[in-house]
Amino acid sequence: MSDVNSTTPDWRSEINFDDKGLIPVLAQDASSHRILMVAWMNRDSLEQTIDTGKAVYWSRSRDRLWRKGEESGHEQIIDEIRLDCDGDVIILMVKQMGGIACHTGRASCFYRTLQNGQWVEVDPVIKDPDKIYNLD
Amino acid sequence: MSDVNSTTPDWRSEINFDDKGLIPVLAQDASSHRILMVAWMNRDSLEQTIDTGKAVYWSRSRDRLWRKGEESGHEQIIDEIRLDCDGDVIILMVKQMGGIACHTGRASCFYRTLQNGQWVEVDPVIKDPDKIYNLD
Repeated sequence: MSDVNSTTPDWRSEINFDDKGLIPVLAQDASSHRILMVAWMNRDSLEQTIDTGKAVYWSRSRDRLWRKGEESGHEQIIDEIRLDCDGDVIILMVKQMGGIACHTGRASCFYRTLQNGQWVEVDPVIKDPDKIYNLD
Repeated sequence: MSDVNSTTPDWRSEINFDDKGLIPVLAQDASSHRILMVAWMNRDSLEQTIDTGKAVYWSRSRDRLWRKGEESGHEQIIDEIRLDCDGDVIILMVKQMGGIACHTGRASCFYRTLQNGQWVEVDPVIKDPDKIYNLD
């Protein structure tokens, strides 16, 4: 190991996980730069994301690792990983397989805009969720 | 009030604030689509953001409303507000005054990328923070 490497802090030490050991992660489309979704990672899921080159989140509702696309096939291929100044938010720049990130069958989870005091759905459903998740 | 309006739920009811009454908010540059920063809002700050057309966050460290740019002049003018499918993350599409969102004097807080196991600073400091915050 070189002197440079031995004196450079480990990348993990720069990350400030919260009191539950989690960090919020934004997935952004590397081509369109659209924000696709926000999820959570723990240290294990982040390490697996880096090792495999595909997004692996921590599902708070299911309390387990969530390999994005494991059911839908809508994997996210990692292009770049960024960290913010406080070390407490991560951006994944990704290639979104299938062009659908949201469980509602839309490109992005952010499909509602505020217009005159109402949330208005402005993005189409690309694929019926029943056809995404019920494959048999 | 029309029948339509009287039966449409209030926009506030669609938002799922966390157990501290907060929701994470991503600010994205409306032109470049770059993610500038992530901060928090409570209901009051979100209402003030909507009313004034400028980003007003909740500072967790200072435990008070934080009118973005109140010291730096780097206000964020609201172009669009989006909500995700779970109602627990908001995107602000903004015009970033001064072209600087980060307290380090950079365009974005996400100026570090992971390269070969190291966080590498890839974006320049546009303005010395001392010159941003110490005006006298």
